Amino acid sequence: MNVGVLGLGYWGPNLIRNFLGHPEIEKVIGCDKKEDRRNFIKSRFPSVELTDNASELMEGDCDIIAIATPVNTHYDFAKDALEAGKHIWVEKPFTSNSAQAEELIDIAQKKNLKIFVDHTFIYTGAVRKIKELIDKGELGDIIYFDSVRINLGLFQNDVNVIWDLAPHDLSIMNYILPGKIAKSVDADGIANFYNKENIAHISVHFEDNCFAHFHVNWTSPVKIRKMIVGGTKKMLVYDDMENFEKIKVYDSGIEMKARENIHEALAQYRIGDMYSPKITQTEALNLAVNEFIESINEDRMPLTSGKDGLDVVRILEATDKSINKGKQIQIGSTVVIGE
Amino acid sequence: MNVGVLGLGYWGPNLIRNFLGHPEIEKVIGCDKKEDRRNFIKSRFPSVELTDNASELMEGDCDIIAIATPVNTHYDFAKDALEAGKHIWVEKPFTSNSAQAEELIDIAQKKNLKIFVDHTFIYTGAVRKIKELIDKGELGDIIYFDSVRINLGLFQNDVNVIWDLAPHDLSIMNYILPGKIAKSVDADGIANFYNKENIAHISVHFEDNCFAHFHVNWTSPVKIRKMIVGGTKKMLVYDDMENFEKIKVYDSGIEMKARENIHEALAQYRIGDMYSPKITQTEALNLAVNEFIESINEDRMPLTSGKDGLDVVRILEATDKSINKGKQIQIGSTVVIGE
Amino acid sequence: MNVGVLGLGYWGPNLIRNFLGHPEIEKVIGCDKKEDRRNFIKSRFPSVELTDNASELMEGDCDIIAIATPVNTHYDFAKDALEAGKHIWVEKPFTSNSAQAEELIDIAQKKNLKIFVDHTFIYTGAVRKIKELIDKGELGDIIYFDSVRINLGLFQNDVNVIWDLAPHDLSIMNYILPGKIAKSVDADGIANFYNKENIAHISVHFEDNCFAHFHVNWTSPVKIRKMIVGGTKKMLVYDDMENFEKIKVYDSGIEMKARENIHEALAQYRIGDMYSPKITQTEALNLAVNEFIESINEDRMPLTSGKDGLDVVRILEATDKSINKGKQIQIGSTVVIGE
Amino acid sequence: MNVGVLGLGYWGPNLIRNFLGHPEIEKVIGCDKKEDRRNFIKSRFPSVELTDNASELMEGDCDIIAIATPVNTHYDFAKDALEAGKHIWVEKPFTSNSAQAEELIDIAQKKNLKIFVDHTFIYTGAVRKIKELIDKGELGDIIYFDSVRINLGLFQNDVNVIWDLAPHDLSIMNYILPGKIAKSVDADGIANFYNKENIAHISVHFEDNCFAHFHVNWTSPVKIRKMIVGGTKKMLVYDDMENFEKIKVYDSGIEMKARENIHEALAQYRIGDMYSPKITQTEALNLAVNEFIESINEDRMPLTSGKDGLDVVRILEATDKSINKGKQIQIGSTVVIGE
Repeated sequence: MNVGVLGLGYWGPNLIRNFLGHPEIEKVIGCDKKEDRRNFIKSRFPSVELTDNASELMEGDCDIIAIATPVNTHYDFAKDALEAGKHIWVEKPFTSNSAQAEELIDIAQKKNLKIFVDHTFIYTGAVRKIKELIDKGELGDIIYFDSVRINLGLFQNDVNVIWDLAPHDLSIMNYILPGKIAKSVDADGIANFYNKENIAHISVHFEDNCFAHFHVNWTSPVKIRKMIVGGTKKMLVYDDMENFEKIKVYDSGIEMKARENIHEALAQYRIGDMYSPKITQTEALNLAVNEFIESINEDRMPLTSGKDGLDVVRILEATDKSINKGKQIQIGSTVVIGE
Repeated sequence: MNVGVLGLGYWGPNLIRNFLGHPEIEKVIGCDKKEDRRNFIKSRFPSVELTDNASELMEGDCDIIAIATPVNTHYDFAKDALEAGKHIWVEKPFTSNSAQAEELIDIAQKKNLKIFVDHTFIYTGAVRKIKELIDKGELGDIIYFDSVRINLGLFQNDVNVIWDLAPHDLSIMNYILPGKIAKSVDADGIANFYNKENIAHISVHFEDNCFAHFHVNWTSPVKIRKMIVGGTKKMLVYDDMENFEKIKVYDSGIEMKARENIHEALAQYRIGDMYSPKITQTEALNLAVNEFIESINEDRMPLTSGKDGLDVVRILEATDKSINKGKQIQIGSTVVIGE
Repeated sequence: MNVGVLGLGYWGPNLIRNFLGHPEIEKVIGCDKKEDRRNFIKSRFPSVELTDNASELMEGDCDIIAIATPVNTHYDFAKDALEAGKHIWVEKPFTSNSAQAEELIDIAQKKNLKIFVDHTFIYTGAVRKIKELIDKGELGDIIYFDSVRINLGLFQNDVNVIWDLAPHDLSIMNYILPGKIAKSVDADGIANFYNKENIAHISVHFEDNCFAHFHVNWTSPVKIRKMIVGGTKKMLVYDDMENFEKIKVYDSGIEMKARENIHEALAQYRIGDMYSPKITQTEALNLAVNEFIESINEDRMPLTSGKDGLDVVRILEATDKSINKGKQIQIGSTVVIGE
Repeated sequence: MNVGVLGLGYWGPNLIRNFLGHPEIEKVIGCDKKEDRRNFIKSRFPSVELTDNASELMEGDCDIIAIATPVNTHYDFAKDALEAGKHIWVEKPFTSNSAQAEELIDIAQKKNLKIFVDHTFIYTGAVRKIKELIDKGELGDIIYFDSVRINLGLFQNDVNVIWDLAPHDLSIMNYILPGKIAKSVDADGIANFYNKENIAHISVHFEDNCFAHFHVNWTSPVKIRKMIVGGTKKMLVYDDMENFEKIKVYDSGIEMKARENIHEALAQYRIGDMYSPKITQTEALNLAVNEFIESINEDRMPLTSGKDGLDVVRILEATDKSINKGKQIQIGSTVVIGE
């Protein structure tokens, strides 16, 4: 198979390196209007063909087009690529709105092409381990999901901090909590420097009383990437800044006790052992590329398909509305995660 | 002076120990209906007189009544004490609603009695150091305040997690950001075990575009007590779980750059040195008792007065409304913090 | 029983508080030549009788004399107390040299009196948990023990940093590795401020090829109290500065592989899960007092007896010799730990 | 210039990448007897010429030979390269003994060729910052240097853990403490798996009473890379496992107080602020390559020359003797670091 990589900025070189490393990829073509980015790729990956012309790339002999350009260009490039009969790989967030995502899914379905949305974290050893623990019932029912992803980050000027950072965490939530029905979204934020929020907080309420919260921030002096998953049996902390013990599972929790008098607690806590499972170290992007190519070969939906991209975009859209109106936005039962 | 301590539960013994240690306090009387609590105090502090009768305590020769009972009893006990001509010390949160707080402030003013609200954190070395740094302009203008206070905590059955934990953080915010005008409150939460929220998130918007957020949680497997204060010059992290370096000041921040093209950031970050100032170790409650007695002697408002208690209660009230209605609640300009 | 506490400095008040709390103790008498220390105890523990006369204390009606004075006075006070027919509690290190320790053990044996050496750490939840894990074979055979205890500490002027800090770690080593035979000691150190070492490193070689190392330092800017126990099956880290996860057990280790060629490793590592067992929170000194009184009642050796104190003193003596001579000191088979 | 890289194992590819990135390097030739290593380089760096014949490489048109083979082959390859008129880059430790190092230095001097010993850590932002702080007197006189470098590491079968890991720390010590005279070395260790030590402790005493200690361990369940540098004014901690705050400078220390009585300390501690300077992020190996090529162009000694390699080897040799004899080894005034 041949792959065209569109956009050679921050993430493009990683895509190239991983596609080059896959045994079924014969040729990689890179495309960017900027000469310095093409020269950078030339020096690092001499075997990659280069062009500054996206239309040419679309019309060429690529089987796959990987789109790593700014969000607001995803839809047009993706549509062109699908129309040209290519499978597509799209960076997160999938599209600028859910209508675009739905249309692309529709086109792909009709032409039997695959859409892969690069929710990279789904392919990390840590997130796969969390999924495994939840699936086998280790944590019990999940009652809450709390995520913090903050650092001193480069401002994007086409999207706010929610569209930039939250797709990582929303895609993880959707992956580990399939079948849950997101009911409403409440978002708050502040734009200190120009008209895009640089700090934001997002709450998601689920039909079964589960609750999720996301804190994203481009203006934090410290880098924190931490999630807490609260279950009825055990609770889990995933700290992505830890080098070694990224996941800790706490055999601790809340137990209900009979009410005695007004000063007594109704619920009391239990503290037990903690353990930290070993995490596989394989590069996530490598597994992602494998999954995409396998899904094409096996003619099946990839693990992170257009539908998963759409689920994330729907919540992102709802955060925009919620911030504008200052209230909770009902999402409706259409967002059954992962279905 | 003589002090009556009403309520000998978790916090009462600490009040007794600190009042006993003050040179101007001659006698301490403890009061609790529960015999085991009185016996506990007897064994630990043999010099303390004990009674099970609150009315007797009110009518006795105490100059000060310290109220360390459940929140919903604060107003009645406080009113009785003020009517009996006593200065009062009230645990946080001051009252169950703002009307009660206003009435107590009014009574105290008319009778020239002092109300001290025990916002203990204001008296810690760490918070006083933060105040000092902000006051001398070290951080520049404050653009955001982010607080996390979560652990596996004992459930209260008379209040939710916001009324239990957030007063600490709200009082710190009000103390270090005086004069700012809180405009609206948006709160979200979930009650997993009975009808009181055990997890909650609160956003506060200010008139000058400053933003504050509070995460409180009784059901976290890990204990986190961390605040970030973002300023235009520097940013500060206060981690109360650190034994030694509780405060770190980052000479890092955001700088606006001219816009070049659509892929370029409008704002870029700057990373500089960090420093951690030495913190005074004196027990906060000891300083709080000193401040209260000094304010009585000098016939002036204590640092944490009824007005400060009221400011916190107003925001707590707004969180209740916001959770009920699922939207932001305007507070109105009445809440000029600390004035 | 009545207890006399000799020396009301840093540790004396803790002894008083814990003896007072024991149900079988009727009376506690405190003794110190310094008036301000006696006054301090009077204000904190009004029920304690006080004297400035050690001889009087020895001749009085105490059943137990607890000695919390400088090390170089332990032997004289301990001998007087034993001669007067009292059971003794002695702070660590037991004595200034092994001859003194042997003599005291001899006297106690002849008069059927108990010697309790206050190796407090043996009674902490963490050390008891480590002992339990090793005893049940969880770690396999122990191949090394590495301890670091450093901070910015108050200099003692009667002993060097080894005699001040290492007894904690040596007593822990002896407790968790009973039956091992210490073969030689090699110590190194430096005295930067006056003629007592403020930094020291101690190596202990065992007959079975087990190896222990101790780093003690009064002049470290950071406080570290960390031990690693390496076993053939698992390895354990005990970090006493951690608030919650003090002990971590690593299912990691070294596995021998067949030699392939000169560039290949002979041994390779295996990385598995980690777990952190729950630790009991009871105050160590409380359990120590219980153990001492129980050993008297049951007429048996306490868990930390004169023999355990002697084992530690023998190694301390060897460190002095090793530093003086700049070489390893053979200890001889007399030091079979704990026997 | 052309460069031949001998040994394409773990470190070789990094050398190739950095030499390739230098503007003055025209050609890089890689040499390894193993076909799979040559193939690996071919796939990663297609422009690199490859050979399995070291003699051919030596006789070719390279200006520089970089030697990244096992330690016991360094001397032969280095001598051949110098004899063939090449400048040499040698991985640490420089040679297997000091006689070899002296001979190579001698040959290079006679032929006016440069020897660069790859003490990579010297080129890290962190170590250069420490050097800068010490040079400008920020820490005062250095009284001790304490280093811990432990992890679950691959066993080497040609050298013990000291020769494998300690060169990093010894070279850092020598770099930041130039002019100090190392007087004696005392080393202790244990070989648990075969006849090479896997755990070791090394003490170095200096003529001016400065003291250094090194703990190296291949069998630790946790990875620690931490140094403490104690000065008379300030103290510094360098934690290489920290992602962000690698260096912390403590304005804390020891102050001598007049002696009052036997219980009083002679020295007391002072605790002040801490700060963490910003560290430059440039890749160390990149700076190392620049320094080597610049030293050739300017016909001067590189920052890490054969003499620096020899200083490290002399201490390594002394550790072997000390472990064998169980005593301190005098080094003599020949080891004036860096001169």
